[in-house]
Amino acid sequence: MKKNEQKSSLALKVIPLGGLEQIGMNITAFEYEDSIIVVDCGLSFPEDDMLGIDLVIPDVTYLKNNIERVKGFIITHGHEDHIGALPYVLREVNVPIYATKLTMGIIENKLKEHNLTNNTKRKVVKFGQSINLGQFRIEFIKTNHSIVDAAALAIYSPAGIVVHTGDFKVDYTPVFGDAIDLQRFAEIGKKGVLALMCDSTNAERAGFTSSERTVGRTFDILFQEHKNTRIIIATFASNVDRVQQIINTAYKFGRKVVVEGRSMVSVIETATNLGYLSIPENTLIDIEQLKNYPDEKTVIITTGSQGESMAALSRMAGDNHRKISIGPTDTVIFSSHPIPGNEKAVTNVINELLLKGADVIFQDVHVSGHACQEEIKLIYTLVRPKYAVPIHGEYKHLKAQAKIAKELGISKENIFILQSGDVLELTEEKAQVTGKVPVGDILVDGLGVGDVGNIVLRDRQHLAEDGIMIVVLGLDGASDELVSGPDIVSRGFVYVRESDELMEEARIVVNEAVDSCLSRGISDWGKLKSSIKDALGDYVWKKTKRRPMILPIIMEI
Amino acid sequence: MKKNEQKSSLALKVIPLGGLEQIGMNITAFEYEDSIIVVDCGLSFPEDDMLGIDLVIPDVTYLKNNIERVKGFIITHGHEDHIGALPYVLREVNVPIYATKLTMGIIENKLKEHNLTNNTKRKVVKFGQSINLGQFRIEFIKTNHSIVDAAALAIYSPAGIVVHTGDFKVDYTPVFGDAIDLQRFAEIGKKGVLALMCDSTNAERAGFTSSERTVGRTFDILFQEHKNTRIIIATFASNVDRVQQIINTAYKFGRKVVVEGRSMVSVIETATNLGYLSIPENTLIDIEQLKNYPDEKTVIITTGSQGESMAALSRMAGDNHRKISIGPTDTVIFSSHPIPGNEKAVTNVINELLLKGADVIFQDVHVSGHACQEEIKLIYTLVRPKYAVPIHGEYKHLKAQAKIAKELGISKENIFILQSGDVLELTEEKAQVTGKVPVGDILVDGLGVGDVGNIVLRDRQHLAEDGIMIVVLGLDGASDELVSGPDIVSRGFVYVRESDELMEEARIVVNEAVDSCLSRGISDWGKLKSSIKDALGDYVWKKTKRRPMILPIIMEI
Repeated sequence: MKKNEQKSSLALKVIPLGGLEQIGMNITAFEYEDSIIVVDCGLSFPEDDMLGIDLVIPDVTYLKNNIERVKGFIITHGHEDHIGALPYVLREVNVPIYATKLTMGIIENKLKEHNLTNNTKRKVVKFGQSINLGQFRIEFIKTNHSIVDAAALAIYSPAGIVVHTGDFKVDYTPVFGDAIDLQRFAEIGKKGVLALMCDSTNAERAGFTSSERTVGRTFDILFQEHKNTRIIIATFASNVDRVQQIINTAYKFGRKVVVEGRSMVSVIETATNLGYLSIPENTLIDIEQLKNYPDEKTVIITTGSQGESMAALSRMAGDNHRKISIGPTDTVIFSSHPIPGNEKAVTNVINELLLKGADVIFQDVHVSGHACQEEIKLIYTLVRPKYAVPIHGEYKHLKAQAKIAKELGISKENIFILQSGDVLELTEEKAQVTGKVPVGDILVDGLGVGDVGNIVLRDRQHLAEDGIMIVVLGLDGASDELVSGPDIVSRGFVYVRESDELMEEARIVVNEAVDSCLSRGISDWGKLKSSIKDALGDYVWKKTKRRPMILPIIMEI
Repeated sequence: MKKNEQKSSLALKVIPLGGLEQIGMNITAFEYEDSIIVVDCGLSFPEDDMLGIDLVIPDVTYLKNNIERVKGFIITHGHEDHIGALPYVLREVNVPIYATKLTMGIIENKLKEHNLTNNTKRKVVKFGQSINLGQFRIEFIKTNHSIVDAAALAIYSPAGIVVHTGDFKVDYTPVFGDAIDLQRFAEIGKKGVLALMCDSTNAERAGFTSSERTVGRTFDILFQEHKNTRIIIATFASNVDRVQQIINTAYKFGRKVVVEGRSMVSVIETATNLGYLSIPENTLIDIEQLKNYPDEKTVIITTGSQGESMAALSRMAGDNHRKISIGPTDTVIFSSHPIPGNEKAVTNVINELLLKGADVIFQDVHVSGHACQEEIKLIYTLVRPKYAVPIHGEYKHLKAQAKIAKELGISKENIFILQSGDVLELTEEKAQVTGKVPVGDILVDGLGVGDVGNIVLRDRQHLAEDGIMIVVLGLDGASDELVSGPDIVSRGFVYVRESDELMEEARIVVNEAVDSCLSRGISDWGKLKSSIKDALGDYVWKKTKRRPMILPIIMEI
């Protein structure tokens, strides 16, 4: 028995490497002795102050430093905030990927784009199936979400079982496949669960999230009401069930369907090939064929429901789409809610569409993919965990779930709101945060991964606010005499013709600063530059109340 | 009779110079023969792509060109989007200002800041009172709004009466003063109204906006529920009634009140001096005195309800406030809704406050200041205008009001959704848009008004996205030989030490481009610069998939 006792007192470590206190970038390591598994590997989208950044991926230094122990990535579903960092992270942490069929299909599309398909082992897992990775066994459990094939995980370790819901909702009447496997949650709960890591996204919302199927009924009504116009529906490319329902309604009303937008085309192709989407024959037509059908016999399914400036719908609204222009015979339906931060962009697109005479419908044609409070309570009550570790959401969402857990009788000391990097050690006897591993945002800009840091961002902010003034002058290398300039060039500061008074005076100010330095024998370039910066900065602030970046460049002639 | 007939066939011109199809920048000219009056003179806040811009004011070229006919500004209420451009516009269009007492008090604060108080004639007008300006008579009618002393206007012209609601709601139980003067709307309606210009902000919302007084009851409940913590309430500085209700509840619960944030202090001072706010003795204390009272005996009213980064609440949340720090004994109440575009900033502040342990309440402690659909219907039904001209709102809001007007029996041809600059000519017989006057956004950046235009903004965008690479080289003026450089300096592009490979190779690329030009005898600086731009741009794109601004500077030595 001694050995057993010793074993059971070893802790399971739960280490979120991202995704806590933020939306996106979900990635969590589970560690027991010589085994590490990683659940999800998502990206997040740049904050407003990350100028010019395309996307943000997690710092996986901890995984790199323990690479020999990392057994694989377990992916819960195919959304960007759960898979998007894979192509970057795999370059450094190349371990096998485990996921359900559609999720893997979407991952494979992504790897193909990055020419990584041949380097990475992949294994498709079925619901109910388990995989063994080192000291872990991981079981995939069917859930519902705004993308099909979403899984919760039961993670079996010698220290106990952790149930990780992934992103989920409870849909008793899903469009495709089965309802969430509540019986299995209950069975595992009966066995005794150490910790529940449950989706917090909608933890502030009372009640239940509606079934995806309710949106299908709304489409039926809207198609009935708009029999005489073309119908354009914007939604999330990855919401295959939504697309299925649009196609079903279109077919019912004898309309042909065009799919527009690169990511929409790609997901529909993958979903159709893998059997997740069934499209009646002769329903889908090419965009080129649109002109062969009357408006009231067509539907366009498009990307751009978030007002993204380069997406198909925004291009249509802005008259920049090569094939489709909007007019009074169009009904445009937003089958989506704006993601926080996108409200204004979405409103701008709506206004543009209305201005072109289209009828625009943007309320109540969407349901969330995340569990509300009553669903969260249901899962807690089936799983009956000892410890609660709310995941997926900003701090306010985690806090809201913690409140629910407390109401359900989990004591305050057993509820852990973690920060990314925290090492939470769990045993049947106790749980505590015992340390911290390095985490952070790695910024991706074009081909550069991590080469844009705080200094570059600060410079971009500065340039964005007030522009730049560049002062160039040539010094004689031997005599330290001014032989050329100072010339001043500005960008993003103020539009001036060469002769403008402000720039003329600025040149005089710089000249005086340089003269004063050189006449006092100061020829140290650092000092000369800071004199120029100070003098010109003061002058410009006094005249304009602006602080452009001032960049003196001295050339040795 | 001949003369009369001729007179009545002359049209009243309604010319919005801003504020249509946008939020903010409300300003409308009314013109009849030799008389022009201007209703409101607001600013708008910069759009996301107006980098570095502080605020936006309307182009008033039309008023400047007709200055001898402009009789005055009539201001409906004291919000920035109705008064904010006055200090800028008055410099060029210096005509008298007419407004109610509190509105004028707020305007005077603004003029003081700009040292304009002595230059501008001002007249305080009472509700029910009329002023005569040229061929116009303008009557001020009591309404309700989220700032006290808001007025609707009845504008009497020889061509007929226009009723302009300003921003309004119907509050049967206002906190201060009377309910909206519905009887007067009805009386004027009985006389026969040519056109109604009605607030559209909430035209998409069904039902009635709740009374401001309901928020007071909410404060009572919240103070009861949070008896043991300090209470911090963020709201709009200009909502004097809200502040009054907070003070009332604080007094009831024996709490002392601290006012924090510059604009909050200024509005409360003005409102108190003018008799719009009554503060029980010994209720207001200075921020320095806070430490003399237990937390549960204090309330802090603060700015920052929109997540503005420099406002008092954001500084408290971010630990940057010199006097107040947030902790678990604080309850923070947002008595506000996020204005579209501010959602994310508000959420960030909420998360920061929660992280510090504060209890945060941000739902249902606010009512709107704008009329919903039923109130809009009420006003139309009392006024019974011949023509409907929806105002105040984005295109979707104007469109929503147009729909309401149609439902109420106004024929489609008599409803006008105008664009800024449209000249709408109205007579009893007909109404039509007959022309266009110049309008536009004038950007204010620091002291500069209108000196930042599209080129500067485009440059700021470019700099913000990918930064700048500056290439400097010295050419011998006589021989066109390269005597210095090329040197490359970058900012906001990528953080590099001098030795980095990318910059080293970039220098070689530029060198080759310059050599190739000079060896072919091309010494035209324009051509030389574009060769450098092309060569370096291609190289950088290939290596990084980024397009920094490339700025070659050639010095003649």
